[in-house]
Parts: sequence; C-alpha cells; structure tokens
Amino acid sequence: MLPDWVHRKCPSISGVHRDAARLRQGELTKPAGALGRLEDLAIALSGLQHTDRPRAARVPVIVFAGDHGVVAQGVSAYPQAVTIAMMTNFATGGAAISVLARELGSTLEVVDAGTLAGAPVAGVVTDKPRGGTRDFSRERALEPSEVRFAFDCGKRAVARAAPASPDLLILGEMGIGNTTSAAAMAAALLNTGAGAMTGRGSGLDAAGREHKARLIDGALAQHGIAGAPPEQIFCAVGGLEIAALTGAVIASAQSGIPVLVDGFIVSVAALMASRINPSCNPFLIFAHRSAEQGHRLVLAALNAQPLLDLDLRLGEGSGAAVAVPLLRLACALHNGMATFAEAAVPDRSA
Amino acid sequence: MLPDWVHRKCPSISGVHRDAARLRQGELTKPAGALGRLEDLAIALSGLQHTDRPRAARVPVIVFAGDHGVVAQGVSAYPQAVTIAMMTNFATGGAAISVLARELGSTLEVVDAGTLAGAPVAGVVTDKPRGGTRDFSRERALEPSEVRFAFDCGKRAVARAAPASPDLLILGEMGIGNTTSAAAMAAALLNTGAGAMTGRGSGLDAAGREHKARLIDGALAQHGIAGAPPEQIFCAVGGLEIAALTGAVIASAQSGIPVLVDGFIVSVAALMASRINPSCNPFLIFAHRSAEQGHRLVLAALNAQPLLDLDLRLGEGSGAAVAVPLLRLACALHNGMATFAEAAVPDRSA
Repeated sequence: MLPDWVHRKCPSISGVHRDAARLRQGELTKPAGALGRLEDLAIALSGLQHTDRPRAARVPVIVFAGDHGVVAQGVSAYPQAVTIAMMTNFATGGAAISVLARELGSTLEVVDAGTLAGAPVAGVVTDKPRGGTRDFSRERALEPSEVRFAFDCGKRAVARAAPASPDLLILGEMGIGNTTSAAAMAAALLNTGAGAMTGRGSGLDAAGREHKARLIDGALAQHGIAGAPPEQIFCAVGGLEIAALTGAVIASAQSGIPVLVDGFIVSVAALMASRINPSCNPFLIFAHRSAEQGHRLVLAALNAQPLLDLDLRLGEGSGAAVAVPLLRLACALHNGMATFAEAAVPDRSA
Repeated sequence: MLPDWVHRKCPSISGVHRDAARLRQGELTKPAGALGRLEDLAIALSGLQHTDRPRAARVPVIVFAGDHGVVAQGVSAYPQAVTIAMMTNFATGGAAISVLARELGSTLEVVDAGTLAGAPVAGVVTDKPRGGTRDFSRERALEPSEVRFAFDCGKRAVARAAPASPDLLILGEMGIGNTTSAAAMAAALLNTGAGAMTGRGSGLDAAGREHKARLIDGALAQHGIAGAPPEQIFCAVGGLEIAALTGAVIASAQSGIPVLVDGFIVSVAALMASRINPSCNPFLIFAHRSAEQGHRLVLAALNAQPLLDLDLRLGEGSGAAVAVPLLRLACALHNGMATFAEAAVPDRSA
C-alpha cells in the first residue's frame, strides 16, 4: 500500500572514513575522549558523508503542515485556524523556526501537506491530497491513496532540497492536533496504550490530557490497530504532515543525507521510517529530548540518545535547529585542531 | 588575607527588564513555555544586562594556566611539560578552545598565571607570583601573598577584557595536575572527603584515581582544612590558575558581566567565588555537566542546572564555548520572533 520506493535500501556508511576519523580524534591535542559526544558526532558524520572532513554547514529546513479532523473532539489548547496562520508566520519570518533558520543561514521551505487552507498560501508549497484528515475518533483518518500521496510529498520535498547538496536535513512540522495523531500512532505501533504516550501538546491541562488519552485509547480499540503495521496505522489515525515527514526521512536517508531529528512528532515519523525501512537508522541523528511526555518512549524504541535536553516542546523543527551549532563545532574541532605531532605537545606516553 | 575588593557587592539585577522579558515570551507566536530553557536564558540575560534585547554576541575567552607541585606524586596521566606546550598551542590556534573561539568570533587571551615557564611565551600574558605551586602533599601549596597576587591577576584580566563591552565572559584553564588541586579544594570546602570528588582527570585508570584520592585525603588531614574557609584552602591545596579564575569570576560579576561557567575546575572556582562573595551568584550561567566525577557535587552545591551534558572533560573553557550558540539562539528568538498580535495568529483564548 505504501509506495514501492520506501523499501529501497539506503547507501552504506563508509567504515574507512569512520575509522580514520576515530584515529584522528585520538591524535588531536586533548586527552582521548575528552570532547565526549562531539567526538562521536564528528566520527559518525565522517562515515555518513564519506569524508575526512565532515561538515554541517548546509542544513536546509523543511516544515510540513497539516490539519487534523480529531480537533473537533477538543484535543488542543489552540484553535484549528492556528495551523494556517502559522504557515504564513513561517513564510514571513516571524516564527521560531524562521528566526532559527535565519540565524543558521539555512533555507526554510514550508509545505502545505494537508492543511484546511482552501487556496495556496504565499511562500508555501502546496502539495496535498486533501484538506485535513478525517476525525479518527469516528472513522479512518486517511485513505491508502492519501497516505501514499503524502509519502510522495515528503520525497518530492527532499528532491527539491537535494540539488544544493545539504550536509544534513532538518524536518519540522506544524498542525493543531498533531500530537494527538502522533501519540495514537506511536501507542499503536509500540502497543503501549495511550496513557504513557499522551502529553500536554501545546498546553492542555491535566483534565484535557486525560480526555485526549481516553479518546486515543478508544480509537485504538475501534480501529483495532494495537501492534498493527505502519501502513494500517497511518490510515487509521495518521496525519498527512506525519506521513510526509516519514516519506521525507526515508527519502533523505536513501539520498545519503543524514536527518537531524526534532521532537515528538518528527521522532514518531522517524520511528515509522525505521520500522518501514531499517536501513534508514544510521542516518538519524537525534537532536533533543522534548518535554512532551511520549517522546521518551519513542526515543527509547529508537535506542536514541538525543544531544540536548532543554525542555523544548514547540516542534517546527526548532529543537533540531538549536542542535545545529553543536554539529558545526564538532566538525570545526575535528577538522581544525592540531595533532600532538603538529603542535609538538608531549602525549601521555612521553 | 584575600584582597579587599573581592567583598564588594555585585550590581543588582533589573527586575523591570526581567519581568518585561517574561511578558514578551508569553506574547511570542508559540505556546507559553514551549521554548523551555531558551526562554529562561533570554529572561535571565535581560535582567542581568538591563535591557529589552539581550545579547550573547561578544563573548571573549580568557584561559589561565598554572602548574602544580603535587604532580611529583604521579597524579596525572600526562607529563608536566604539557602545561607550557599547550599554552603555545592555545596561542598558535591548534587547541580546542582556539578552534572554538575562532568559530564563535571570540577573542582568546591566554594568561600564564603560574606555570613553570621560565621566560614569557609568545602570545601569552605573563602575570604570576611564582612558577608552579609547592607540592601540597608535603607543604602548603601557596603563601597568602601568592594567593592574593593570583586573585589580582584574575581581576586584571577582566579589566583588560571589559573595555570591549562583553555580553558574557568565558573563563578557562589549563594545568597538568589541576583536577587534583580542584578536587582537594572542593572536598575541603564541602567537607566530603576525596573519594566522591576525585575523578580520572585527563585519563587516569582506576588505580591512578584511587592513588589520587588517597593523596588528597592525606593532604586534607595534614593541613586540617576540612570545612575551612576559602582563603585557608587556597593556601593549603590551591592552584594559581584556580585563584586567578576565582578572582576573575568575582571581578566579572562585579563589572556586571555574566560568566558562562565551564567544567569541574572553573566550577570549583565559581564555588569559591560564591562562598567569598554570594552576590556573584546571579551572574553565573552554567554551561555543561562534565564527565569529571566531582563536577556533579560541585554543581549541586551551587544549585546549578547546566545547559549541556555531552560527556565533555577537556577544560580550557571548551564546554562553555560550546554553549554559546544556545545563548545566541535564545536571544535571537527572544528579539526576533513575532508576537501573536504582529503575526495575526489566534492565541489560545481565541
């Protein structure tokens, strides 16, 4: 039911470059291992990028937006109109991810992957099979053809970004109600029940969170998707922007471009991508641990150790963007430090 | 015994600017609190810098170097000559902190606050009362006049940096043996015993770490400094670069310049500064949690929640430098995002 291309294998990692990078880290003027995870990042990027000099200079951002029929059930602290308003805010430079992309010198593409916008929004790429999902508490959110369209939408976005030879890619999302869809998807895939997976989203109180969890549990039972395969979960409770993200993760990894994974929603997409095509896994670099409750479980399922833990819970790709300077500095250190021999510093064997 | 100036009160925080910043964070186009600790940073900096538009643009780095007589007892994985060789490496651009300073557009000043270098090192400011400390396992490390000199050295370095109006200051250190001195100082001040405070430094094995801890415990008993006041601890087991750091922390805070605190050694200096002059506390921003064992205890004593946890254990100010982009992005978001009103995005009350 998913498009055939999602199963194509991702390119291999260069063991030669990874080993050479590890060797170089041991020769730089510092105790071995003293730069901790920055060393690991430089080594991993060397293998992923097949190079002696890893880079995190060009890091374009793609944000996928979508609306969610389940919002009719009162699962969000914000009105649905915010999805469309925020697309304009992304495009005109006022949103968090707009500011971050500017600071990082990154391009920002906004894709309407399924919002309720009836006409194209200025500065936004429209690429959607329908406006919003159906209310998954009453019926299937998406038809198989709509899921397929959204996966292809993600692939098309990566294809637009690829000619600029990105060193990494940031994927973000916006969609009022999408933590409800993402929590339902992850709870179904990991068979956890909604309680542990459901968070406050953009700002629910305790009662709102309980309502959201009950609603998700009801939908999981109604659709019979506990432990179901990804394609079935996408149809039952998925989101168009989440399907586009999943397609984009897979397409990026297949193009050899590592993905800097943002928070809860993007991590659910990454988890889906990883289950659909496990050869994506080495291309996933986890940026941060979100304050959104379910993120811990999703990260654990991905065996991921994110770089940052700053209580972020915004989405838009913002957490991934905040981690970019760490990768840049890791590369600068790897490429720019002197070795013990070059600097004539006595090593510990001296 | 310490110079009189260390007791002068630091300037007050602007509650007006802090409150205005908190208000603004609530008006920006994101759920309230969704940027987590980045919001806290922008709010804190607004209060510290008495401004509506906090900045982390100008962040000079000062690295203090010193040698340690206790190295004669085999407490370091590296030979003592590394201290001087690394000063040259800092000055010629090959060290981690050199690379990081370059990437951040920061100036880097290296101060020989007490190494064994017999002649000035090119590109390094020489400002020391003697070459190296005495072996504290046999005698007092420093005379009171030498501690005073080193505090003044720290103040002089801040005075050289201040005319460029830094937004924050990074203080770093280099000195073979200085985790031994710092662990002894912190174990004495916090009365913990050496076992919990002593780490692997630049790379000791388990036996080396045990030897180091036993040696520290012996020195604490011999000098009778468990729970002693800072000045007595500095004389007994201190380091010249650590005294200079402590003076620099106090002088920077007194000048209204927040200090981005690095790892274990600088945190011990910050702890000493905080005990000597508690009005410094609001000016301390903790960059990272080091992999060096004692850092957790020192951070807990300072009630500090560092921004990063990346298994760094290099020193030189490197961990603080790695955190600078987080502060810059926090400021950019605070200053550059649109408000709900400006972007015509419906807020949650809509």
